[in-house]
Amino acid sequence: MNQFLVFQSDFGLVDGAVSAMKGVAYKVAPELIVSDVTHDITPYNVFEASYRLFQTVDYWPLGTVFVSVVDPGVGSSRKSVVAKTRKGQYIVTPNNGTLTHLNEFVGIEEIREIEERTNRLKNSELSYTFHGRDVYAYTGARLASGTITYEEVGPKLDLSEVVSLELHGASRDGTSVTGQIDILDVRFGSLWTSIPYEMFQSLGFEFGDYVEVRIFNNKSLVYVNRIVYGRSFADVMVGMPILYMNSVNHMALAINQGSFAKAYNIGVGSPWTITFAKA
Amino acid sequence: MNQFLVFQSDFGLVDGAVSAMKGVAYKVAPELIVSDVTHDITPYNVFEASYRLFQTVDYWPLGTVFVSVVDPGVGSSRKSVVAKTRKGQYIVTPNNGTLTHLNEFVGIEEIREIEERTNRLKNSELSYTFHGRDVYAYTGARLASGTITYEEVGPKLDLSEVVSLELHGASRDGTSVTGQIDILDVRFGSLWTSIPYEMFQSLGFEFGDYVEVRIFNNKSLVYVNRIVYGRSFADVMVGMPILYMNSVNHMALAINQGSFAKAYNIGVGSPWTITFAKA
Amino acid sequence: MNQFLVFQSDFGLVDGAVSAMKGVAYKVAPELIVSDVTHDITPYNVFEASYRLFQTVDYWPLGTVFVSVVDPGVGSSRKSVVAKTRKGQYIVTPNNGTLTHLNEFVGIEEIREIEERTNRLKNSELSYTFHGRDVYAYTGARLASGTITYEEVGPKLDLSEVVSLELHGASRDGTSVTGQIDILDVRFGSLWTSIPYEMFQSLGFEFGDYVEVRIFNNKSLVYVNRIVYGRSFADVMVGMPILYMNSVNHMALAINQGSFAKAYNIGVGSPWTITFAKA
Repeated sequence: MNQFLVFQSDFGLVDGAVSAMKGVAYKVAPELIVSDVTHDITPYNVFEASYRLFQTVDYWPLGTVFVSVVDPGVGSSRKSVVAKTRKGQYIVTPNNGTLTHLNEFVGIEEIREIEERTNRLKNSELSYTFHGRDVYAYTGARLASGTITYEEVGPKLDLSEVVSLELHGASRDGTSVTGQIDILDVRFGSLWTSIPYEMFQSLGFEFGDYVEVRIFNNKSLVYVNRIVYGRSFADVMVGMPILYMNSVNHMALAINQGSFAKAYNIGVGSPWTITFAKA
Repeated sequence: MNQFLVFQSDFGLVDGAVSAMKGVAYKVAPELIVSDVTHDITPYNVFEASYRLFQTVDYWPLGTVFVSVVDPGVGSSRKSVVAKTRKGQYIVTPNNGTLTHLNEFVGIEEIREIEERTNRLKNSELSYTFHGRDVYAYTGARLASGTITYEEVGPKLDLSEVVSLELHGASRDGTSVTGQIDILDVRFGSLWTSIPYEMFQSLGFEFGDYVEVRIFNNKSLVYVNRIVYGRSFADVMVGMPILYMNSVNHMALAINQGSFAKAYNIGVGSPWTITFAKA
Repeated sequence: MNQFLVFQSDFGLVDGAVSAMKGVAYKVAPELIVSDVTHDITPYNVFEASYRLFQTVDYWPLGTVFVSVVDPGVGSSRKSVVAKTRKGQYIVTPNNGTLTHLNEFVGIEEIREIEERTNRLKNSELSYTFHGRDVYAYTGARLASGTITYEEVGPKLDLSEVVSLELHGASRDGTSVTGQIDILDVRFGSLWTSIPYEMFQSLGFEFGDYVEVRIFNNKSLVYVNRIVYGRSFADVMVGMPILYMNSVNHMALAINQGSFAKAYNIGVGSPWTITFAKA
């Protein structure tokens, strides 16, 4: 534990919800260093929450405590947990799939269910809709500040209890790799695929090579083109497409200073398949 | 005073205005802990500013100083004040209705007018449009850091001088309660009413009961339905409406994983009346 | 160096990019005080990035380190630099025009190119698209925390190498001043012009005077009116236009509680010329 407490949610920043969570945290321990991943996760989108943690957790100091509240099942029987990653970070979250990517790509070492009798904001027992404030921020702050140990969060669960969403796969045959479009680099409209750099590389591409790109929506081919594989956007002219390795070491498609997603109406998720082949 | 300085405004985060305020604060006292309620208050909407303070102030440590700048009358004769709440928080704000909810639900213990000859950023005398930076951030930082005492803010005003907006009422007759729709839980489209939990409860409802809900826009009935009263969204199927107590202990209406406001084009404010009755 | 590290970008806050930069910074030095200008710079808009720095830098404590990442040329030969302003602030940025306003209005005392062999996040050598995280946040944090001196950033460049955009000018003839519309006060729709207060004042206007205002889009006259020159919005009735000095000491046009830009479809940049004359 290192005093860092980092929040993520789908609450937006338009009302006072995020601030109430931070206030609760500082009330527990004014010495905390509080920051954010994002609060603009698409409402109820657990896959996005999982992906954004995967994108950021590794860059924070060891021992950082993350509180992620994308919780479509608030008030249901879904469990409130704190996971410890193999690298020694902590994630306070509903056990609803938010841990999917960290479980797959970083590894969860241990998971504990939050014991709400002890780890709940005083006098919040009648509040059933804001566990982010009453349970998660409160517990995260106590853990990050060393007020409680990880063991005092509550009883250990079996690692098999980590709820995981189905991840978009990626596969290689002789001369091509196929995957899904996981998510957008939202502001710039780039497509981030589920195809790891190493799998793509195994086809033997070099910078400057042209790659045959096909995008399908279900079984319909919606885009086909030969695109250059480059280091970064500036390797092509403004307005031209480029295939590159993104900041989480997966293959991605962009238009230099344009939006690939808008230009061709491309979406994300399992219906969207993408193939890279030798041109 | 505890070093916490928390900003709210209708400036948005798109330009440098909020950052200029924070810079001014840190220049006064680099040891401050600076945070935010929200900067996305609807422009000029003093009611919203008042409500968001009510929603959050209580969750912050005692002695926290809030700076709220929703100031349609900047440059007019409206006074710049610092209010001290009964619980010992401080609010730096134009005296324009921003204190309404805290005055009604928490209580204002004392209010002082900011003496601008001493409590104004040096060399800002010709600046008439950004009191948030030149007066409020500066004074809030001096107060939060203990550079000045509360008494040094300026002369005490009579408590009757606190400007209050008219609050949406709530009333009960034999078998029903009536109120207004105060505000939205913006991201999720839930309707937050002016009907306190206790008033609703006095009708004798229990979890699982059906409640007859009517919503009027002025005198037109725009929605009528029997809705289950539950603890939280997960008590109903996805897509179904639910009546529940919100995180500030008032009654609210939501659609589980949907938006009640968008589904039925419901707005906020005094034209929007809502009634809960025994079904 | 004073431990303050302030970020600006066009990344938005919707994904994890900004958080990854902050995590990198805290990993370098957990004692840093991290804040933001804005992350909503219009994508690739270097002029806006330059203006927002100009609007805020001066209000932060001396020695503050700013990291500005609006970088349409990431991966090109544009240089990564750290500029030291005459007032003693530091700006970590691609040398692509982001320093334009500070160079013109504050003055750059020295500029150094970032030596990436030493000033780059470990194990990020294969990452070509996120210099904000791998180089700028990392170097900014090392500088702000005193881990490296300014000299250790890398070799000094000649001041003539500072890349500057063309600034919108302003000029006076006998009875009028002419300039461009630089930028909007986004949330409120006010027009911020390139005409300095002193130049306007030299025509001898006093508060309450009417000024003849003309706005041209290229050579087409799109707006003409006589508008009162006042201290602040409250000097005119709600819905009325006003000419005033903005918070960076330039002349601006607003509609009290309305949006001048929306009301008359006014844009920003060099095609938009504005003239103030004696009425």
